[in-house]
Amino acid sequence: MCICAHISVCVLHVHTTIYDQENFQGKRLEFTSACQNIMECGVDNIRSLKVECGAWAGYEHSSFCGQQFVLERGEYPHWESWSGSNAYHIERMMSFRPICSANHKESKMVLFEKENFMGRQWEVNDDYPSLQAMGWGNNEIGSMQVQSGAWVCYQFPGYRGYQYIMECDRHGGEYKHYREWGSHAQSFQVQSLRRIQQ
Amino acid sequence: MCICAHISVCVLHVHTTIYDQENFQGKRLEFTSACQNIMECGVDNIRSLKVECGAWAGYEHSSFCGQQFVLERGEYPHWESWSGSNAYHIERMMSFRPICSANHKESKMVLFEKENFMGRQWEVNDDYPSLQAMGWGNNEIGSMQVQSGAWVCYQFPGYRGYQYIMECDRHGGEYKHYREWGSHAQSFQVQSLRRIQQ
Repeated sequence: MCICAHISVCVLHVHTTIYDQENFQGKRLEFTSACQNIMECGVDNIRSLKVECGAWAGYEHSSFCGQQFVLERGEYPHWESWSGSNAYHIERMMSFRPICSANHKESKMVLFEKENFMGRQWEVNDDYPSLQAMGWGNNEIGSMQVQSGAWVCYQFPGYRGYQYIMECDRHGGEYKHYREWGSHAQSFQVQSLRRIQQ
Repeated sequence: MCICAHISVCVLHVHTTIYDQENFQGKRLEFTSACQNIMECGVDNIRSLKVECGAWAGYEHSSFCGQQFVLERGEYPHWESWSGSNAYHIERMMSFRPICSANHKESKMVLFEKENFMGRQWEVNDDYPSLQAMGWGNNEIGSMQVQSGAWVCYQFPGYRGYQYIMECDRHGGEYKHYREWGSHAQSFQVQSLRRIQQ
């Protein structure tokens, strides 16, 4: 299962430069919109990149599938600099696309204890490096409804582990079960989350 | 050089449980204050942990030296779940201590373009997953002055890479050069930073 579906239609001022070697070396390509398969551009893998403008989602596989990586403005010299500290080190990024996020102050999401929007619920509009520290009862979230903006959820506290990108303008903002969080999601475990900024 | 110096004197309600095997297995020990050398407790390394209360700083070596890791409330089943996505995988945590942070809304720090509090400056009181996206000119910070609370700075955007813990009640809150950020700091590179919450 992929979270691919459609390319975002919101018009964004975005710009990123990718390199096929670490430390901004080797073949270099510039992008101002999504790339569904980097191999079609004559590059076998992305090994470093600079985000000049906007927020992007990077993916392990082509067509926006597999492990997800949030990419915000700045310099990423190697795979370790954008990955989420996982035991699962595949070191591949084959596709990427801009993320359409809301005004930072207006981002809003509802968390549900159980899948299918059941159980205890909690509306969030801020960044949470530890959900448990802020009162959430356990280390799992059953389902999520994004009402505004784009968010990234993480397996572990302090924004570590697998990343799950949740957007208002995808799936109608509805993520009923971890199977809808991305093809790499294997459990309901989420211990930190934050808003994505442009 | 160590950032050790003294054990924090602020009285905190803190609690953490460490295990000498991954996934909360093996020998188990509970702590409500700092531990300067886990080997003195009969454990050769910390391989998983649960923070039940408070925020903590974990260290690669004994006596609060080496690579730093912020630990907030939640469950950490293996080294990868608290490390900062570094190429440098030593997989050791030998000491830890509570962090005394301010009321989250009152945290304040001044960033300086150059070392010794020189050059352009910028007062921050929020979390910044990308400093460049918020207007900071490059991928480095020359020096920092913590006026309130505790902060964590990261090499790469999105809270990745080496972690540097900066505290109001250590060094008088003054970090004049990267050599004062911790024994593992090798450059001025900082691309994201955030407040530490209890």
